[in-house]
Amino acid sequence: MTDRCADLGERELVRRITEILGIWEKDDCAVVEDGDRYLVWTTDILHRRADFPEIATGWQIGWMAVAVNLSDVAAMGAVPLGLLIAAGIPPETQVAFAEEIFRGMNDCALGYGTRILGGDLDSFDELTLSGTALGWVEKDLILRRRGARPGDLLCTTGTLGSAGAGLRAALEAEGRGDGSVDDPDLQALTRRLLLPSPRMEEGRALALSGGVTSMMDNSDGLALSLFDLSQAGGVGFLVQEEKIPIDPLVSKVAEDGDDALDLALYSGGDFELLFTLNPDRIDDAARGCDLAVIGTVLGEREISIDSGGPRRRLQPRGYQHMTRGEAGGGRDRR
Amino acid sequence: MTDRCADLGERELVRRITEILGIWEKDDCAVVEDGDRYLVWTTDILHRRADFPEIATGWQIGWMAVAVNLSDVAAMGAVPLGLLIAAGIPPETQVAFAEEIFRGMNDCALGYGTRILGGDLDSFDELTLSGTALGWVEKDLILRRRGARPGDLLCTTGTLGSAGAGLRAALEAEGRGDGSVDDPDLQALTRRLLLPSPRMEEGRALALSGGVTSMMDNSDGLALSLFDLSQAGGVGFLVQEEKIPIDPLVSKVAEDGDDALDLALYSGGDFELLFTLNPDRIDDAARGCDLAVIGTVLGEREISIDSGGPRRRLQPRGYQHMTRGEAGGGRDRR
Repeated sequence: MTDRCADLGERELVRRITEILGIWEKDDCAVVEDGDRYLVWTTDILHRRADFPEIATGWQIGWMAVAVNLSDVAAMGAVPLGLLIAAGIPPETQVAFAEEIFRGMNDCALGYGTRILGGDLDSFDELTLSGTALGWVEKDLILRRRGARPGDLLCTTGTLGSAGAGLRAALEAEGRGDGSVDDPDLQALTRRLLLPSPRMEEGRALALSGGVTSMMDNSDGLALSLFDLSQAGGVGFLVQEEKIPIDPLVSKVAEDGDDALDLALYSGGDFELLFTLNPDRIDDAARGCDLAVIGTVLGEREISIDSGGPRRRLQPRGYQHMTRGEAGGGRDRR
Repeated sequence: MTDRCADLGERELVRRITEILGIWEKDDCAVVEDGDRYLVWTTDILHRRADFPEIATGWQIGWMAVAVNLSDVAAMGAVPLGLLIAAGIPPETQVAFAEEIFRGMNDCALGYGTRILGGDLDSFDELTLSGTALGWVEKDLILRRRGARPGDLLCTTGTLGSAGAGLRAALEAEGRGDGSVDDPDLQALTRRLLLPSPRMEEGRALALSGGVTSMMDNSDGLALSLFDLSQAGGVGFLVQEEKIPIDPLVSKVAEDGDDALDLALYSGGDFELLFTLNPDRIDDAARGCDLAVIGTVLGEREISIDSGGPRRRLQPRGYQHMTRGEAGGGRDRR
C-alpha cells in the first residue's frame, strides 16, 4: 500500500498530477501562444522551513523568491515581462523584516530589467512566498528541454557546487548557534546560495545564438537535471568529470575531491543553465556568454560520467520534496 | 510601537508593500501591454486554516483554488488563457485526496473554457494552493476599478450573502462534530461557499456591452469592495437596502433581517461582479447578463446605505488577514 504522498515521492506524485491535468510536456515554463511569439510562464513556491536558511536576511529571502522564477524564464531563452508575488506572512513578523523582504524582491526584479506588478497577501503560520514570472520569446528562438541530438555538446554556464557548499557552511554556522559566517570564502559561498543570479542575459544570448538545441536550469542539481533533460529529449549524456567547472571555493568545505564532485553533481541551488549545443555553432554560443563544455549527447538514454577509468552511471539523486531524508546535500530551489 | 504585521493590519501592510514595489494602481489583475491587447494576470494563495472549511472535499478545495483566480480575470472583462498552480502538500496527505484536489482544479478550469498549464509542487506542513491565472482583453474593453462617474448605476450580478451563510452552516456542522450538512437548503448554501462560480461569461458580456465604467469582484464582501471601488475611482456610493439581492436561502441561517443584511454586506466569498454602469446603457448590459441595480454613484467619497430612514454610513468591515478576530462573518476568499 502506498497511500500517503510521502510514500510515493515527489516525482511519482508529479507524474500522476500531470496526467490528471493533461500536461504532457515538462519545461521550466509553461508555454502559451501569443501571435508570432510565445508567452512563457512559471511559478515557484518557497517557504521558510525548506528554502530559507536561518542566516538569510529578509532582503535575501525576497531576492531569492524572485530570482528562482526569473531563472525559469531565462531557461526558455525569454525576456521577462513581470512578476506577481503571493506572500503568506506570519502575523508576528516584524514589519521591518517584511518590508526588507519586499525590497529584496524589488531590487532583484529591477536588477534584471523587470518589475513586480502585483500579488496577494495572506496570514500564514510559516513564511511562504509564491512567485510567478511571465516572459516572451520569439517562436523560432524558444528553448525547451527536448531538442538535443546525439553528438551535440553538453554545456553549462558558470560554476557548480557553490550553493551546495554554501548551504553546508550555513548549516554549520546554524549548528554552532552563532548563525553567522565570518570567513570571506565561506561568505562568498553562502552568497551564491542566498543570492542566486538568474542567467537572464546568458539565456537570451544562447537563444539568439541559434546553436542551442535544448536547455533548462540546473536548480535541482546537475544530476537530476540531466535525468530531466534525458527524459524530455529521449537522449543520454556522457559527462567528462574533469570538465565540470567546480567552483574553486567548494574545496573550502568539501572533505576531498570526491566530496566536491558530489556537491557539484547532487546539490541544487546553483541556478546555472544546462544546455546542449550544435558543435558547429560553439563559436556563436561562446560569443554570447561564458560556457563550459562538460560532455556530449548520446543516442541511448544512459547517463554516465567518465572519470578517467571505466564509465560510471550517474544516480538520479538530489532533493525530492515528498521523500524526507533523501536530500543530496542541497535544498530544492526550483 | 507597531512593530508586528498583526498590529498594522492587512490593508496598511499592503499599502507599504505596494509603495516599495511602486505599484500605484490596484485592480483585480495586474495589466501588461501586449500589442493591441492587454494581458491580465492575477495570483491568489489559499491555505487550509483560513480558506478550506473542514467539510470541504478535496475536489471542492481544488475547484476553489482555480475559481478564485478565474474570478479576478472575469472582473477585468477578460478571456482566460490558462492557469498555473503551486501546491504545498503535507507529506502525510492521502494520495487519493491529493489527486481529488487536482481533479477539482482540472474540472473547474475546463468548465470555464481554460486549462491548467503547469505549476510547482512542494512539501508543506499546511495544505497551501497558490494559483495564478492569465487572460487577455481588448485595450478598449478592459474594465478596471477606476472609471465610475457620478450618476452611474451601481450594480451586481447574482445574489449576495450565500457564501457567508454557507460558512455559518459549515462551522455549525463542524461544531456539532459530525462535519456534515444534511438540510438541502443549507447544502445549497455551503455549495455556494465551497464551489464558487467565477462570473466569466458575465464579465465578458459586460465588457462587450460597452456600458460598464468600472468593475471588480466582491470576494471580500460587498462593503469592503465598495470601499475599494471608491478609493480607486474617487467616488462614493448610495446603496438602496431594499435592492440588495440577498439570496433567499440566507434567511435559513440568519437570525433576522438585519443579520441577513449583514451577511450580504460584510461576508466574503460570493464571487459576484460589482460594477458601475452608464444609465443610458442599462439595456445593453442587461442583455448580456442578469444584473441587479443596487444604488448610484456619488461625486463625494461617502459610502452610505438608504434603508428607508436616515442614510447610514457603511463601515469598511470584512475579513482582513493580518488582524485576527475581526472577521465579519466571512473568510477572506480573494
